[in-house]
Amino acid sequence: MSESYAKRAAELDAADELASVRARFVLDDVVYLDGNSLGALPRSVPGRVEDVVRRQWGSLRIRSWDESGWWTAPERIGDRIAPLVGAAAGQTVVGDSTSVNLFKALVGAVRLAGEGRDEILVDATTFPTDGYIAASAARLTGCTLRPVAPDEVPGAVGPRTAVVLLNHVDYRTGRLYDLPSLTAAVHAAGALVVWDLCHSAGALPVGLDEHGVDLAVGCTYKYLNGGPGSPAFLYIRRDLQARFDSPLPGWNSHADPFGMTPDFSPAPGALRGRVGTPDILSMLALEAALEVWDDVSVSAVRAKSLALTDFFLECVAAYVPQGAVESVTPSAHADRGSQVALRCQGADAVMRSLIERGVVGDFRAPDVLRFGFTPLYVGFGDVERAARVLAEVLAGEPAGAPV
Amino acid sequence: MSESYAKRAAELDAADELASVRARFVLDDVVYLDGNSLGALPRSVPGRVEDVVRRQWGSLRIRSWDESGWWTAPERIGDRIAPLVGAAAGQTVVGDSTSVNLFKALVGAVRLAGEGRDEILVDATTFPTDGYIAASAARLTGCTLRPVAPDEVPGAVGPRTAVVLLNHVDYRTGRLYDLPSLTAAVHAAGALVVWDLCHSAGALPVGLDEHGVDLAVGCTYKYLNGGPGSPAFLYIRRDLQARFDSPLPGWNSHADPFGMTPDFSPAPGALRGRVGTPDILSMLALEAALEVWDDVSVSAVRAKSLALTDFFLECVAAYVPQGAVESVTPSAHADRGSQVALRCQGADAVMRSLIERGVVGDFRAPDVLRFGFTPLYVGFGDVERAARVLAEVLAGEPAGAPV
Repeated sequence: MSESYAKRAAELDAADELASVRARFVLDDVVYLDGNSLGALPRSVPGRVEDVVRRQWGSLRIRSWDESGWWTAPERIGDRIAPLVGAAAGQTVVGDSTSVNLFKALVGAVRLAGEGRDEILVDATTFPTDGYIAASAARLTGCTLRPVAPDEVPGAVGPRTAVVLLNHVDYRTGRLYDLPSLTAAVHAAGALVVWDLCHSAGALPVGLDEHGVDLAVGCTYKYLNGGPGSPAFLYIRRDLQARFDSPLPGWNSHADPFGMTPDFSPAPGALRGRVGTPDILSMLALEAALEVWDDVSVSAVRAKSLALTDFFLECVAAYVPQGAVESVTPSAHADRGSQVALRCQGADAVMRSLIERGVVGDFRAPDVLRFGFTPLYVGFGDVERAARVLAEVLAGEPAGAPV
Repeated sequence: MSESYAKRAAELDAADELASVRARFVLDDVVYLDGNSLGALPRSVPGRVEDVVRRQWGSLRIRSWDESGWWTAPERIGDRIAPLVGAAAGQTVVGDSTSVNLFKALVGAVRLAGEGRDEILVDATTFPTDGYIAASAARLTGCTLRPVAPDEVPGAVGPRTAVVLLNHVDYRTGRLYDLPSLTAAVHAAGALVVWDLCHSAGALPVGLDEHGVDLAVGCTYKYLNGGPGSPAFLYIRRDLQARFDSPLPGWNSHADPFGMTPDFSPAPGALRGRVGTPDILSMLALEAALEVWDDVSVSAVRAKSLALTDFFLECVAAYVPQGAVESVTPSAHADRGSQVALRCQGADAVMRSLIERGVVGDFRAPDVLRFGFTPLYVGFGDVERAARVLAEVLAGEPAGAPV
């Protein structure tokens, strides 16, 4: 049986228009299905980082703030990410962590919503940091925080709602939420929406401008492969920028940073999402990493992503005894991100065995195996092997010869 | 005349117990007096960064969060900085920018101060970002913000004061403020103090524990040489930690980050100063940079710093025609940081000429030449040359042969 799936995998790999992109990454024999946590290293990064350290910092030193483009990196790299999330230039800045950007976006949104709106709705199933930060934003702005399931947002959002914070893709189940319709529902109630794109940026089309999203944040170390803890991004829709009032007004978001004036006068545009001095090493590593996208379209990535996850579910259904695992990832394409999450007994130990056998996913408590599929470097052969090794582990078979 | 100062410089360099430390940095023929803005590159950094990128990220990938110590880097590197600012272990974490850490510290301090204290005092002469962030913290916590000159703090702090934000060394004039007595004055009024150590950490003894400082922040890219935009640090005094209530509670400050629980339960100790995923490349570059301190004491650095700035002022007085420049840096050692700031006409153009002639300081509007002296790599010969070239520029002399 596995021979027919292996043959199918080989055929799919041969027809894969993104197959050549894999060579742009440093990879080995491991099947790396954890790019939804930390993307693999693009080959463009090490040389760039070495240049930043040895020449830009070591030799040019302070001059690099101008001469090496350090000062403008947050908005320049933001504009490089923008087309990947469907945004025109001038609305995205890079810097700080996702959590810190969520704080800016939520407090900023409450202030944009104006008088009489004193409620923040947050995805009840969200990645925890979003909920913690939303609680802090609510507390500091005098708002009430109300967790609601994303599906219930259209019924829950109302005249008192200032802002709704939603995840585009659930970090645990891999469920993709309907950004256009949920955005429209929030807008119909006169509220603003903040989308967390951590698990969708670089994995599927987002369409921020097209769907009129107000504010969005996302990390860059998952499907954008920016490296461990690489800086996050913040999107502020153009027509909201003039009124965007950040709770973190640092000297980097001042209209005249070197004027060193005691009064704060915010910079125009997305720059007012900046705060302090940008972390240049991490930021310029990200810039180099984004070069892998130069001739790659998000729609091609999405098509391959769905084919990969379809094929994985198919192989799992064929290889793994019925009932041993249960997918918590929706089967409908419209509801699926770029990962597959399988519940099973002893998931923690199962994942350790998988990793020992060269298939790297991750475990999320209490019982979920997460497999992320980065179409830029994961192939169909990887998918077949992952499902086959999973079946071996679940059957208690000894590890086979290294593949 | 310049021969006698050059001879003195040579003698001072020969007797300098820190002279050999200069070889730990990548330097050239330039006299680099801008280490108070961006420290020079330590030789320990490039190889480490290459290992972090190629092996830890490129080869180990996700395993490095545990196996390469990524997850615990913020507190481990905090503990490496701690002795440089007079702090015992377990009170310092690294991460985010100085501005973001100021926000955590100020809002946290207002919450620690408790009921009835609704005023924040801020150094009226502060680096601007401190004032902007203090204004935001005041607005979000319902406090009044009052700018006061540091010298007037003892008379201004009162029963309504929650927290006072002070700079240890003024970024413009290089004036050092009396941390012990100002801390005592703030405490006598029952308020808390937040010290900004950007221009003192790594330059002079701070004594956070000894003087009972409540909270402190500082950057790591000046006298700590961590690289452009390297992450800042936050100090939370041990006995305040259990009540420290951060306005940026991210999943990294949770007691059980991978429990992924919807309710926030803060981590014990300084860890609750963390927020989101740390920027590993910038952070581990900083860790490597801190190795230059392994056998260097801050008191030796301070002694050399005062000798360097004394000698610079002496050479300037000897070389530069009277009245051409005016030092705004205090002459008393107790009031001087590790920089000298000179006012002069056309300071912007003068600094450009200095840089063209291989003496790198910086210009701060409207009329200040700033010269920072990092004792780890600046020698007395550098100092004599800087003063001599300054005199040449001010006298309108053509550039001499390269030194």
